[in-house]
Amino acid sequence: MSEKPLRVVVIGGDAAGMSAASQVKRRIKTAEVTVLEKTEDVSYGACGMPYNIGFRGNINDLVVMRANDFKEKRGIDVRLLNEAVGIEEEKNKVVVKSLASSREYDIDYDYLVIATGAKASKPPIEGVQNRGVFTLKTLNDARIMKEYINERNPKRCVLIGGGFINLEMAENFRRLGIEEITILKRKEALMPEYEEEIDMMTKEELKKNGVNLVTGIELKKINESLSVETNKGVFDSDIVNIAIGVKPNTEFLSSTSVKTDKKGAIDVDRYFKTNVDNIYSGGDCALIYNRILKRNSYIPRGNNANKAGKIAGANIAGANEEFAGVVGTSAFKCFESTIGKTGLSLKEAQNEGYDAFKTVISAQTRAHGYPHQGKITVIFITQKKTGRLLGAQMIGDETVALRVDVMATALYSNMTIKDIQGLDLVYSPPFAPVWDPILVCANQAVKKV
Amino acid sequence: MSEKPLRVVVIGGDAAGMSAASQVKRRIKTAEVTVLEKTEDVSYGACGMPYNIGFRGNINDLVVMRANDFKEKRGIDVRLLNEAVGIEEEKNKVVVKSLASSREYDIDYDYLVIATGAKASKPPIEGVQNRGVFTLKTLNDARIMKEYINERNPKRCVLIGGGFINLEMAENFRRLGIEEITILKRKEALMPEYEEEIDMMTKEELKKNGVNLVTGIELKKINESLSVETNKGVFDSDIVNIAIGVKPNTEFLSSTSVKTDKKGAIDVDRYFKTNVDNIYSGGDCALIYNRILKRNSYIPRGNNANKAGKIAGANIAGANEEFAGVVGTSAFKCFESTIGKTGLSLKEAQNEGYDAFKTVISAQTRAHGYPHQGKITVIFITQKKTGRLLGAQMIGDETVALRVDVMATALYSNMTIKDIQGLDLVYSPPFAPVWDPILVCANQAVKKV
Repeated sequence: MSEKPLRVVVIGGDAAGMSAASQVKRRIKTAEVTVLEKTEDVSYGACGMPYNIGFRGNINDLVVMRANDFKEKRGIDVRLLNEAVGIEEEKNKVVVKSLASSREYDIDYDYLVIATGAKASKPPIEGVQNRGVFTLKTLNDARIMKEYINERNPKRCVLIGGGFINLEMAENFRRLGIEEITILKRKEALMPEYEEEIDMMTKEELKKNGVNLVTGIELKKINESLSVETNKGVFDSDIVNIAIGVKPNTEFLSSTSVKTDKKGAIDVDRYFKTNVDNIYSGGDCALIYNRILKRNSYIPRGNNANKAGKIAGANIAGANEEFAGVVGTSAFKCFESTIGKTGLSLKEAQNEGYDAFKTVISAQTRAHGYPHQGKITVIFITQKKTGRLLGAQMIGDETVALRVDVMATALYSNMTIKDIQGLDLVYSPPFAPVWDPILVCANQAVKKV
Repeated sequence: MSEKPLRVVVIGGDAAGMSAASQVKRRIKTAEVTVLEKTEDVSYGACGMPYNIGFRGNINDLVVMRANDFKEKRGIDVRLLNEAVGIEEEKNKVVVKSLASSREYDIDYDYLVIATGAKASKPPIEGVQNRGVFTLKTLNDARIMKEYINERNPKRCVLIGGGFINLEMAENFRRLGIEEITILKRKEALMPEYEEEIDMMTKEELKKNGVNLVTGIELKKINESLSVETNKGVFDSDIVNIAIGVKPNTEFLSSTSVKTDKKGAIDVDRYFKTNVDNIYSGGDCALIYNRILKRNSYIPRGNNANKAGKIAGANIAGANEEFAGVVGTSAFKCFESTIGKTGLSLKEAQNEGYDAFKTVISAQTRAHGYPHQGKITVIFITQKKTGRLLGAQMIGDETVALRVDVMATALYSNMTIKDIQGLDLVYSPPFAPVWDPILVCANQAVKKV
C-alpha cells in the first residue's frame, strides 16, 4: 500500500452508506472515510417506522448506531447536515454544503460511494405540503408524524396508495386508536405485483378490520382541513399518509457522467461499481442485480441496501466480491395476515417470455389435530417446459414470511418443482403438518408440468 | 394392462402403508389393494400425541382418515386386527392372522408393501410392564395413557430418556398440571446428535421450567408403586414414560430373503424397492436414502414415512419415481424453546471424514427496535476446503423450525456458505431483521473458509 492513506467519501449515511463506510474501515484501518449526510440521522431501521409509530416507541429505538459511535468506535468521519451538491468528476472532488453554516467546501476522494437513497413520490395535486400530510421515508418524517399524532390525537386517516407501507400503516393507525381508516387507490388491484387471489384476500383482511378501501380514485386536492377531494367524493381526515412509490435521489448527478436509468436509478455492475471506475453506488438510489431476470432491477429495500453497501465497501478495499443478486423477496404484515412474495408473478413471468402456469393451494400451517391452527394460501409460478420455479407468493398467518424464505432459497439455486417436492422440511405439530404447505403446493404443481 | 387386476397387499396401515395404498388406487383404479393392520387404527398423526395428551384433546382428533373412509371413498380393503405373521415369498402370499377370530389365512399379491413401522424400545429391567409405565408409539398407547391420566390425575412423573419425545412430554405433562417432572438420562448429553451449545441451552430451558434432569443414570428397577430405582437413588412417580428409541417391526421377515441392516431396518433402493423385486418398503421399518451421506440412514419420522409410501405406491403403479433423499431435518418444541437441526453435526461430519468447522451466532429474530423480540442461536457446520454447508442447528423462539427449513433447502442443493450469504431473505420488522440470523451466521462462517 502507498504511504498516502486511501480517501473514501460516502454520500448518504443510512443503510448502504454506513455499511460501505464500515466495511472499508474494517478492511483498511488507515483509510480516511468521510460520510456526508444531509439530515441529522444515520444508520436507522426505516422499515420499522410504522411499528414505532403504532406501538408509540421511542424514535431512537430505530437508530442502530449513532453518528458519534461511528466516529469514536470505527474512526469514520460522519458529517451530519452536510449535503453533497455536486461532483467534480475529473478532479475527484465532491462539492459539499454545510447546512448549518451554508458554507460550501470541497472534499477529495480516491473512491466515492453514492448512497443517497430515494425520496417518497407525491401526487401532483394541491395540498400535499399541508401540515398533517405525510410521507414516511426518513427518520425525521416519522419524528414529525409522531409529534403531530401526540399533539392532535387524530381519529380519522386517509392513506393514499395501497402498497405495503400503507397496509402496515393501516394496522398501526388502528393500534393508535384511529377508528376511521380510508385507503384511496388509483388502480383496482391493491398490489399489482401479486396474483389476484392474494390481492383479493388482502382486501378481505382490510374489510374484516373495518378499513374502507376505495379504488379507481383520481385525486383532486387535499384541503387544509385535510379532507381529500377525489373523483369519488370528499374523504374527511385528521391525518394523511402518502405512499405511492419512491424516486432515487440522484438529481445532483445530472452534470456528471454517472449513468442512471430513465427513472434516475444509478446503473451498477455486480460489484456495485458505476460506469465511472472509482465511483460505487448502492441502496435506494441505485439498481441492483436480479438473479432471475439476469439483469438489473430497481428494488429499493433496506436489506438490499445493506448488502450493496457491504459489498461496495469490500470491493473498494480490494475484495473483488461479486453480488449473487436478489430474487425479489419481500413480506409484510397487515392486521392478522402476512403477505409475502419472492420471484416473479405469473404476469411478470409471461412478460419475460416464459410459458408459465400458476398453482394455488390452501392448507393449515400446523399438524392435523394440533389445537392452535393457522391458515395459508400458497401460489407457485412454474415454467411449463422445464418445471423450473419462477416465483412464489403466500398469504396467511405469521409463518408466511419464513416459508417465503424457503422459496427464495429454492429460487436462488434454480430449483424445479420436482426438487421442491423432494425437500426435507420440518414436520413437528406446533410448526408444520406432515406435508408442509410448500410440499402440498409442489405435489399439485408437479402434476401440471 | 392385463385383464387380471393388479393385486397389492400392504402390511401396516399408518403413514407409509396408507400412502402407498392410496397412491396405487389413485393411479390404477382397477387395482385390488388390501391393507393388513394389526391394531384398530389407521392413518393417524402419531407425532401429535404429546400435544393431544397435554391439551386434553379428543384422541380421534389425531385420526386423518378412518378405515371405513378408505374403504368407501378410495376402494381400499382395510382389514383391522389382521396381523401378517409370515410371507411365503416364492408363492407371493402373505400369511395373515385375524386377531378377532385367531383364524389364519393366506392372501396373494403381485406387489407387497411392508410398512410395519417400529416399536418403542424398553430398557431390560424389571417393572417396565407395570401399569402406569408407558411408551408412546401407537395411537392406542396414547389412548391408554389418557385414560390412566384421567383416572389417576398424576402429580409426579419420571421420563426415561432425553430425546425429543420426552422433552415434548415434559412440556405437556406440565400443561396437565404435573408439577414434579424428572428426566432420567444415561449419558451426559440430552441430545448427542446436537452441538453441545444447543444441548446446554436445552438443559437450561428445562431448569428454568423446574424440570429435574438427572444424567449418568443406570436404571435398576421400576416398582409397582412406580418409583424408579437407579444408581443415583429412587425417584418417586405417579406415571412413567419411556422414550429411549425405536426398533423396526421386522422380526416376521426372518424366514424371508428380504434384506435388513443389523438393527432390523429393511434395506430399500431410492425407489423404495427391497432386494426382492415385487416387495417394497418404507416408513419406520425401513432405511431411507440420505442425500448428504449418499447412502441409506435409519430416520424414523412421520413425514419420511408419508413420502416413502407415496413414492413406493407410485412406483408399484409404474411411475419410476426416484426419491430425492432426506437431509435429516427435524425440529421440536420444549417449553418456550424450539430446537431444530438439519444435516450433520460437527461430530457426524468428522466421522464422515470431513474437515469441518462450526460457526455459532446469537441474534434477535425481529428487526432492531421492533417491540416484540425473540432470540435465536444458529450453528452452521461447514466443510473447510470447499465452504460447503454440511449442517445447521438452531435453538430459540418459534421461528427456529422454519429457519431450519431454509437451511434444509440450502442443503438439498449443496449450497456453500458463500451461496447462503447471498440468499435474498425477507426483511420485515415483525418477522426478520435486516440481516436475518441465517445471514449473520453465514457472514461469520464465510470468514473462516
